[in-house]
Amino acid sequence: MRKLLLVLAFFSVNGLFSQQLESTELEELASKFTKASFPMYRELLSIPSDANYPEDIELNVQWCENAFQSRNFTTTRIKTDYVPLLLAERKAKSAQKTVLIYLQLDGQPVDSTKWFQESPWVPVLKQQNEKGDWEQIPWENIENYEDDWRVFARAASDAKGPVAMFLAALDAIESLNIEPNFNMKVIMDFEEELGSPHLPKAVKDNSDLLRADMLIILDGPVHNSNKPTLVFGARGIAQMQLTTYGPIVPQHSGHYGNYAPNPALRLSKLLASMKDDDGRVTIPGFYDGVHIDEATEKILKSVPDDETKIKNRLKIVKPDKVGSYYQEAIQYPSLNILGMESGWVREQTRTIVPSQAIAELDMRLVQGSDPQRLIGLVQKHIEAQGYYVIGKEPTDAERMKYDKIATFTHKVFYHSFQTDFNTEVGQWLQRAYNRAYAVDPIRIRMGGGSIPISPFVTTLGIPAVLVTTVNSDNNQHSPNENLRLGNYRNGVKAMIAFLTEAL
Amino acid sequence: MRKLLLVLAFFSVNGLFSQQLESTELEELASKFTKASFPMYRELLSIPSDANYPEDIELNVQWCENAFQSRNFTTTRIKTDYVPLLLAERKAKSAQKTVLIYLQLDGQPVDSTKWFQESPWVPVLKQQNEKGDWEQIPWENIENYEDDWRVFARAASDAKGPVAMFLAALDAIESLNIEPNFNMKVIMDFEEELGSPHLPKAVKDNSDLLRADMLIILDGPVHNSNKPTLVFGARGIAQMQLTTYGPIVPQHSGHYGNYAPNPALRLSKLLASMKDDDGRVTIPGFYDGVHIDEATEKILKSVPDDETKIKNRLKIVKPDKVGSYYQEAIQYPSLNILGMESGWVREQTRTIVPSQAIAELDMRLVQGSDPQRLIGLVQKHIEAQGYYVIGKEPTDAERMKYDKIATFTHKVFYHSFQTDFNTEVGQWLQRAYNRAYAVDPIRIRMGGGSIPISPFVTTLGIPAVLVTTVNSDNNQHSPNENLRLGNYRNGVKAMIAFLTEAL
Repeated sequence: MRKLLLVLAFFSVNGLFSQQLESTELEELASKFTKASFPMYRELLSIPSDANYPEDIELNVQWCENAFQSRNFTTTRIKTDYVPLLLAERKAKSAQKTVLIYLQLDGQPVDSTKWFQESPWVPVLKQQNEKGDWEQIPWENIENYEDDWRVFARAASDAKGPVAMFLAALDAIESLNIEPNFNMKVIMDFEEELGSPHLPKAVKDNSDLLRADMLIILDGPVHNSNKPTLVFGARGIAQMQLTTYGPIVPQHSGHYGNYAPNPALRLSKLLASMKDDDGRVTIPGFYDGVHIDEATEKILKSVPDDETKIKNRLKIVKPDKVGSYYQEAIQYPSLNILGMESGWVREQTRTIVPSQAIAELDMRLVQGSDPQRLIGLVQKHIEAQGYYVIGKEPTDAERMKYDKIATFTHKVFYHSFQTDFNTEVGQWLQRAYNRAYAVDPIRIRMGGGSIPISPFVTTLGIPAVLVTTVNSDNNQHSPNENLRLGNYRNGVKAMIAFLTEAL
Repeated sequence: MRKLLLVLAFFSVNGLFSQQLESTELEELASKFTKASFPMYRELLSIPSDANYPEDIELNVQWCENAFQSRNFTTTRIKTDYVPLLLAERKAKSAQKTVLIYLQLDGQPVDSTKWFQESPWVPVLKQQNEKGDWEQIPWENIENYEDDWRVFARAASDAKGPVAMFLAALDAIESLNIEPNFNMKVIMDFEEELGSPHLPKAVKDNSDLLRADMLIILDGPVHNSNKPTLVFGARGIAQMQLTTYGPIVPQHSGHYGNYAPNPALRLSKLLASMKDDDGRVTIPGFYDGVHIDEATEKILKSVPDDETKIKNRLKIVKPDKVGSYYQEAIQYPSLNILGMESGWVREQTRTIVPSQAIAELDMRLVQGSDPQRLIGLVQKHIEAQGYYVIGKEPTDAERMKYDKIATFTHKVFYHSFQTDFNTEVGQWLQRAYNRAYAVDPIRIRMGGGSIPISPFVTTLGIPAVLVTTVNSDNNQHSPNENLRLGNYRNGVKAMIAFLTEAL
């Protein structure tokens, strides 16, 4: 290692240091600083971070202030109407570029009774036995961890794991006296699990402070093949609520069956008219604006999805046919029934004609497809079925004037974002990954889920890529959240790789 | 009155007594015995009669035993696996015919907090003020009651009111020393509101004991015009439950929207395919077997339904078009969605692809249309949409074998019954009503609701007619059930009329 250090020190002066840290060296460095960082990771996980408790969040903010200040960052609290955002900055000598790095510190709420350990806020180490059960082992064993062992705690993967990995990577390059050839602005979100309601305004109000050339998001699971993965986009989300009406109060189904119009039938007909048997939206124009060129198709098809495995896990024979394979399906906007309710069912069943029927729908959004246009298409389609469409409950007068009435409300929550594979940030990360792993990373063009990233992308006008690290079976958002230690080390490695990759 | 008595006494010997009690005399007699019976009615309503409490039911049985024994009936308890049925018999000299009379004693369960009085089991007298509110007045005022005053109590209308009216009518003819020229078998049901689950077996096991030439049912509201009404039939009822399936557990709608088949869409498509926009079942053969001849149509059209009023009450513009008017609609079997559920709605909404969707349906049954045939048609229709239809939840193996799976279960609760207008019982009652009211009663060919009468009709092989008496706005099955006193008196009058009508 000494020899290596000398070489690096030399190249560092020339600003050409980074290319010299090849895969094996990165692996060794990541191994060393992974182990060294476990006490820090354990400490961080021990601070409760449900954003519904601002007093707990404050402890997390303070912890981050200390962590970054001690690593030569300057920190700034960005106030919001709730918990603050934290910005940590570190300039590099003769840097040309600034990279904004997004970290999330808060965890999902916990139901302690469903965790197989003392407390979700007291991390434990576990290994899987032959039966497939996870057995706790002494924390001290982590010194000689195996890759498949896992740390169980709330936020272990989502997303304090990546925070600890990033700090470990900083320590790793510091130990070699390396500094990145770009400025770093680390923005820390302490209310992501609440939907980051104050983020859009904070980004807008602090756009100068946050200005950067690109954004990388240290959050999210790698592809379920568990191979290194970069994610270049995420679908946005809009929700809609649709209500149809029958008699103003439920009526006896004996006296009024065959007479009072049934709102559940009406809702069924409306929903049925929107999609075909294969789950494709039949409203003309719905899929307009989505174009997949040959180069993109090649990358989509290069993702090693095991659809047999997916179908077996979901226990389905035939998936919907919006795309001809999983990655293609995700490139299109979706229109999905989240829930539906009318009258009563099972032991509550009453022999009535219900008074109304309600459906909740969501639309996952993609680039090139304006959410307002899509919502407008759905509304026009409902109107085309003969409905008088309004944004609130109908009055008695409206009920007596229009035969078919639908209440239709909608809200766009997150917009989608999508970064071209060939942008500077994409190529830079790809170089780093190629150096670290000697093979191309899995590149996901569009993640199916939605994240509150578009305020950065749209307000700051910068491209964004997710550097994902954690195992996909981490029970994120569920009890018994965990992080696989092999993924932790690989994450540290990926982060050292991009920190040492010239921009 | 004395002169009348003498005349009656004379004709009684000849068995020709009854025709002499003309409308005015019936009215006077009914008035007198209505007032005389109020203490008895009050006492009967004061005995709780929710059939979920057998110890309360026992008190009602005992009360009925006393009431009928003191009126020269012999009583027999017919045991069942739950509460008994009570049979009270009184033979008439030289009677040719036997009339079975059905009474129901138990009331719906009560939610006392929703009653505007001390207790649903303590009857109170109320009159309506100018604002339309019901104000309690001292019980003693009932001595000088007005027709629009009402008695509020559980079972006031459904169906202890008719029980008290019948006892009052018996007392009225007794006061004139008249006896019917037919034998009476009064069968009392103490678990009707539970669906009379033990009735079919009891009727079968005691068919000799119950043998009669006809059945009259002293239950149910008159037509909503509040004019004297005979009901010649009631639709039966079958219920069905239909479940469709998506992924085995709910899936993230971002990751699986456009990929995992949505069970709510599947259910919507199935339900939508069963009926047209006007509420008519589109499954071929569903309405087969229903024939309305000219004579029947004339009687259907003679029912003074005010459809403008119905539509205004239900707040609907256009009713379903199974029939071209209300009475016609009820002649056909119905297929109605009672309830529907999938995923979560409103504040519980989750962004998922649900794992299943469920619908509860009922079918109201009519004569000439076998319920098993109708259920079979629905099942075949589901199969024709490409579904593998089973009677239970699918196994994993079934899920992995069949793309579309539906669980379909069904149960026939009550069969329909329908009596021709021109049968002996119909003509006999019509003669009595013509004498009492000087105009034809409203004759309902088929009531929309369902009653547990078919065991009598099918097992004993006798025709049945409902002699309805109570006001249609009596809040039956709801809090604040009541009986209008004008209806009480008119009921007593109708009952005196048929008791004094020769068979």
